[in-house]
This record gives sequence, structure tokens and C-alpha cells, in this order.
Amino acid sequence: MKAEIICVGTELLLGDIVNTNAYVIARALKEIGIDVYYHTVVGDNFARIKEVFLSALKRSDIIITTGGLGPTRDDITKDAIAEALNLKMIINEEALIKIEEFFKRVNREFTKNNLRQALIPETSQIIPNEIGLAPGVLLEKDDKIVIMLPGPPFEMEPMLYNYCIPYLQKKSGAIIFSRVLKFYGIGESSLEEKLIDLIDSQSNPTIAPYAKMGEVTIRITAKAKNKEEAIQMIIPIEEEIKRRVGNYIYAFDDQKIEDVVAKMLIEKGITIAIAESCTGGLISHKLTNVPGISKSLERAVVSYSNKSKIELLEVNPETIEKTGAVSEKTAEEMAMGIRINAKCDIGLSITGIAGPDGGTLEKPVGLVYIGYSDKNNTFSKKFLFKGKRQEIKERAANAALQLLREKLLEF
Amino acid sequence: MKAEIICVGTELLLGDIVNTNAYVIARALKEIGIDVYYHTVVGDNFARIKEVFLSALKRSDIIITTGGLGPTRDDITKDAIAEALNLKMIINEEALIKIEEFFKRVNREFTKNNLRQALIPETSQIIPNEIGLAPGVLLEKDDKIVIMLPGPPFEMEPMLYNYCIPYLQKKSGAIIFSRVLKFYGIGESSLEEKLIDLIDSQSNPTIAPYAKMGEVTIRITAKAKNKEEAIQMIIPIEEEIKRRVGNYIYAFDDQKIEDVVAKMLIEKGITIAIAESCTGGLISHKLTNVPGISKSLERAVVSYSNKSKIELLEVNPETIEKTGAVSEKTAEEMAMGIRINAKCDIGLSITGIAGPDGGTLEKPVGLVYIGYSDKNNTFSKKFLFKGKRQEIKERAANAALQLLREKLLEF
Repeated sequence: MKAEIICVGTELLLGDIVNTNAYVIARALKEIGIDVYYHTVVGDNFARIKEVFLSALKRSDIIITTGGLGPTRDDITKDAIAEALNLKMIINEEALIKIEEFFKRVNREFTKNNLRQALIPETSQIIPNEIGLAPGVLLEKDDKIVIMLPGPPFEMEPMLYNYCIPYLQKKSGAIIFSRVLKFYGIGESSLEEKLIDLIDSQSNPTIAPYAKMGEVTIRITAKAKNKEEAIQMIIPIEEEIKRRVGNYIYAFDDQKIEDVVAKMLIEKGITIAIAESCTGGLISHKLTNVPGISKSLERAVVSYSNKSKIELLEVNPETIEKTGAVSEKTAEEMAMGIRINAKCDIGLSITGIAGPDGGTLEKPVGLVYIGYSDKNNTFSKKFLFKGKRQEIKERAANAALQLLREKLLEF
Repeated sequence: MKAEIICVGTELLLGDIVNTNAYVIARALKEIGIDVYYHTVVGDNFARIKEVFLSALKRSDIIITTGGLGPTRDDITKDAIAEALNLKMIINEEALIKIEEFFKRVNREFTKNNLRQALIPETSQIIPNEIGLAPGVLLEKDDKIVIMLPGPPFEMEPMLYNYCIPYLQKKSGAIIFSRVLKFYGIGESSLEEKLIDLIDSQSNPTIAPYAKMGEVTIRITAKAKNKEEAIQMIIPIEEEIKRRVGNYIYAFDDQKIEDVVAKMLIEKGITIAIAESCTGGLISHKLTNVPGISKSLERAVVSYSNKSKIELLEVNPETIEKTGAVSEKTAEEMAMGIRINAKCDIGLSITGIAGPDGGTLEKPVGLVYIGYSDKNNTFSKKFLFKGKRQEIKERAANAALQLLREKLLEF
């Protein structure tokens, strides 16, 4: 089955936002063995939406659109497609009730333009939108499938994954299934060297290395009748890769380092307290994205001032005076101080210079010390990260979580 | 002049990478007043590239392609376009010399497939590529302009900015300039209703509302001879919008709420300490993304445990016992406690239930209290946010920063 993606929105066309929707949808379709042949972006213009839709209808079996389902006069995707297919627009009662209830609940006036969100082409059905008010539309006509989804990714994505993909998977019959292995501490080229014979000799599953922002991954992809068959094809290859370079693997599939670390903390019943300076709360933010972490994370302190380092982390004022707030010794005292104050198993600390100002020849922007303390052991490790302020924060936070993971293996 | 962008590459089509090239090119064209009507993504397939190019040729004056200029058999953009325009492919001597020199310099064998990079359609000229080996192609035919650029962004972007944009600006003679107003506390549809007469009566500048994740924006876009003229056209409309709904505006252009708040704090010389529970460090992370905030942010505490609320924020254990950790009273005590402990002008606190677990009928997932304390005034405000854990964190952090902004207006 051939699919194509049409993203509607002048904000995409003019480069106000990057088109992540096409990317997300293409990935999801690939996984259920549906080939995508074209993506098109078109503005909020009736004639052009209709034209692009009619071209797509000629050459593809499945057309998925995003954008233009909202309440404003710019939102005309449904109207343009209905006209292209000679369908009338009718009120969908379910959608209307939901919209009316929303306005009652938030005690806001129901403005007339909101009615538009409940209008859909006849013979079609709605795809529930659990985040926003504009439902999606699913319609089948003459062996073609048309799916219209809203533009905002946080509304679009659950509708795609929960409704559209299961529905399309039934139609497709084949699946593509991938397994991702994530590596830390080994470069892309050395990894490839160690696996080159495997990579070259495989066509199904395929083995593809990929690198981005300090992370190297290997994707093993199998095409099969169903997921179970695909998994059986992947297992022996995964095992061989693990045999060769398994000690560098820290996560699988969509797992992030914070997911891995949080899981280890929770399962092992270990408590932790975190003292952050240069990362400004990012380590804690990442860890608290994981449900259930409140069992392990006792507290975190963003000790931006020296005063807070002294008061909340028991850092010796002399240490700061002699070695500076960004130093091996301060990082160690921060980690030990917060561990003892919070009565936790582990204290993790980070202090550094995120920039753009504050760097010197001796202590340049990007210099970061990560401190670790448990009841047997307190130490800190020096890093030098490149990039802008936010990139340095990101890399430093990830390095701290990687260091924590290594230590947690010993528990 | 109407332009369209065609991005060639199976890796884009299948969702291996996000299409940032279309975004970058569209932004650059917008700034020189060239309207983009379509973006298309197509795979490395001769017939489909040709088909897409011929459609574009019918409807647009300028066609910019990216991708498919390299040495491999997949790289067929130039061939497909040459065939579509009935042009022969010829060797470009300048490009050939550069490629041969490269292979000499790196002492590698010149493989025959590299010749392909020096082939261009007759009557066209090359666009120098200072990073890689594949030159771009510029060709004018029958009032149409065709520009072919390589796919890798770090090669494409310098060629775009240094050669193509100056060349196209001469042809265009106009620029487009936008002003963005960001709103909080008003819905997209009510905002549009209050401005509908303005929106309808304007064609240059245009006024376009746009909503995403709890934020509503208005973009005013003017087409003019130069930036100064555009600004003069935008000012009266911006003033009229401010007159009607100015009290909902919190930021302009690319500013985020944390930028606005950090600027206010730093400029007014106000110190702040933050106590976060459900947002887990996100407010602090956002604020510390802004350079210079160390002058104002004294500390932040992620008080996940009750013990840390009591020890670091002076919350009364009785308050937690009687009203719970997620309550109006606890939020107030957190804000006041951290303000006094940190000896700051303002204490900001947040406590809530980010989910997915921990909700009850009385205190559901998404319930959040934001507390505020200064020397005259301590209070908290109740919110109910929808979404998943990370969305609730995001919305709650933004709401806290918005509340802080409102209070900072009084300083």
C-alpha cells in the first residue's frame, strides 16, 4: 500500500516551525510496512489544498493530512477535502457535545466559530482527540483511505498511535519491526568496525549504526508477517552484537538514560539526593519525568549561590574560597553533603560553567565536575563539554546520569 | 514570485531524519519576500523526482531542490531534472578539477562514480560548495529559476545564504517581515473574535492567529521594499491589537516566558528562590537556560519528599498532615519558607500531582497549586492541567512562570 502525507499550515510553509509531523507519521507507517512516497506541505489555502489532495488521490492508497482542523477561518482542510470528494459537511453530534461541555466546564462563552470543529464530511467518522477539541476524521472511499489529523503534535501523536496505526496495520498485513541498542563510551566508527562483517552480510534484518549528540545507536530492522516472527529474526543478531560490544550498551529502544537510571534506583530500592549547579535542575527534571521516581528521589537542590552550597550542602566555605565553586573538591563536598543531609544512599552533584560568560583560561566554559558519594566512596570526575549554554547543560546532565548508571551496577 | 521546495531523499521520506532543510530555506525566502507555496519530499526515484519537478515547474517561478547531488547511484536529482527540461548533462571543468585535487590531497583513489559530481545540465552554472565535493546547480530557463543544493545541512546552508539568497533577492526586490505577539490567558477563538474585523480587512500586513500547547500567538506580516518600511506598516496594527487585548500579551517574537521573567528579575535586581515538587526542577531548568540568571536565582529546591519540604522549606508537619502535600496551605508555606531561608525577595513554589499514579477523586492527576511569597504578600492558586506526566509538568511550569511575571509587573 502506498501512502502519502500532506501537512497543511502556512506556519510550516513559511518556516516558522519544523515539520516534525511528517517525520513522526512516516516513521510510524514504516513500522507497519506501509511505504510512503511523498510528503507535501501546503498553506491554509482552499484551492491549493484541494489541488494537492487530488494529486495525492491519483497516486496513493492512503492519504494522511495534518493541520487545519481548528476553529478559525484558516482551518479549511476538511472543507477542501470534502469538496474534492463531492461530500457534504455535516455536524457530528459526539464532537459537538464534547465541545459544548468543554465551554461549560471552563465557563467560557461558546463562540460560533467553534461549531466548525464538529463539522465532518458525510460518510466519515471521527477520530477522538483526547487533548484538544478538534477531532480527527477517518474516511474510506473507492478503496482509498483518508485520515485527517490536527496539527499540534501533542494532539496528533496520540491519535496517530492509538487509532490510526492499529487501524492501518490491519489493512497492511506486514510489519517492520526494529530493535534499537544504545551505546555509551564507544564511537560510531569503532563500533562499526567491530560489526562490519555482520552489517555487510545482512539484508533482513538490516543493521544500521547511527550517531547523534554524544550517543551512538544500532538499529536492527526486520520485515516479517508479524511482530513475533520479526523478533525471532532479530534475537540471534542482537545476541551476537551483545557478545561483541555488550558492555557499551546502556539502553534499548525508546529508553532514555534517565529511564534506565530511574528503573535501577526504584527496583533496587536505593534513595538519592541531587545537588546541581550548572545544570540548573535539568538532571532532576529528567529523572522526575519518570513515573514512580518519588520513591527514590528524596530531594534535589539547585545551588546556584555559594550561600546555598554552604547552607544546604554543607560545603566548607574554605573549599569554595581555595578551590572555587567549580572544582573537584567542591563537587565532592556537594555530593557528600546532600547525601548526609538527605539521609540517602547516594548523593550526586554537578558544578560547572555553562557559559556564555564566566569562563577563564584556567576554567573555560564547558568545564564540569560531576561528584558522587555513597557510604563507601566519594569522588568527582572532570569533564569538558563543547557547545552553547543549553547544549552544555544537556551533555553534562547526560554524563552525570551515565556515571550514576555505572555506579548503580555495583549495587 | 512563487517558489517551491523539493527535498529529495528516501531518508526524509521514511522518517529517518526530520526535514530541516525545507524549514531553513522557507525562512530564508520569506525574509526576502519570496512566497513559498509548496514543499514536497520525494525519494531517490528517477520517475517520481521528474514527476514532482514537472508539477512544480507548472505552478512556480522558482524551484529549489535539496539532496541527490552526491556520487552514488542513488544521487539522481540532476539527471531527472535535466531530462524533464530536455537538457544534456555535461562535465563542468571547475567542479572536476576541485574533485580531482581533493582525491590527490587525501591520497585516495579517484573512483569513477565521483565524476558524477562534476556533471551538470547544459546552460547551467555551478554554485560552489565550500564544505563538500558536490557543487550546487543554478539554471534559468523560460523565466523559471531552478536551484539544486546538496542534502547535508552543513553543506547546503552556506550555499543558500552566501549565493542563492543574494541572487534571489536581486530578482525579488522585496522583503517580508513578521512581528509575533504572544498571549496568555485568552483562547484562540476569543482572541480571533476580538480582532476579526482587523484580520478580515488586512491583506498587507496580514494578521494570523496560531495556537499551541497553552499559548496563543498573533503574527503580523508585512511585505515591503525594506525592513524599515515593513516595520512602519506593522506598528499601527500592533498598536491597535495592544489597545484591544494588550493585557494578555506577555512576549514578542522568539521570546519565551522564561526569557521575559529572567529579564525582569535581572533588570529589577530582584532575587528569587524556587521550591518545586511536581515539576521536579523544570522551572529552575527553564530559568537557568537564560544567561545571567545567576544574579537573581539564589537557589531552587526540588522537594520531592515531605521530609525535604519540612527541612529545607520550613513547611509545618501539621500542615502536611492536615491538608496534604498537595494543598493551598502547603504551597503557601513552601513559598514563604524558601523565601525566608534563602533571604530572597520572592519565593515561588509548586506542588501537585503529575501522574500517572497518585491521583484520587478529590485530588486528581493534574491538580497543581502554585504558591507565591514576597515580603507583603503570600498566596497560592489552584490549577487543573490535562495531559501526560511530562505535559502536566510543562504546563504547570509555564503557569508558574506566568504567575511570576504578573507579580513582577508590580515591582
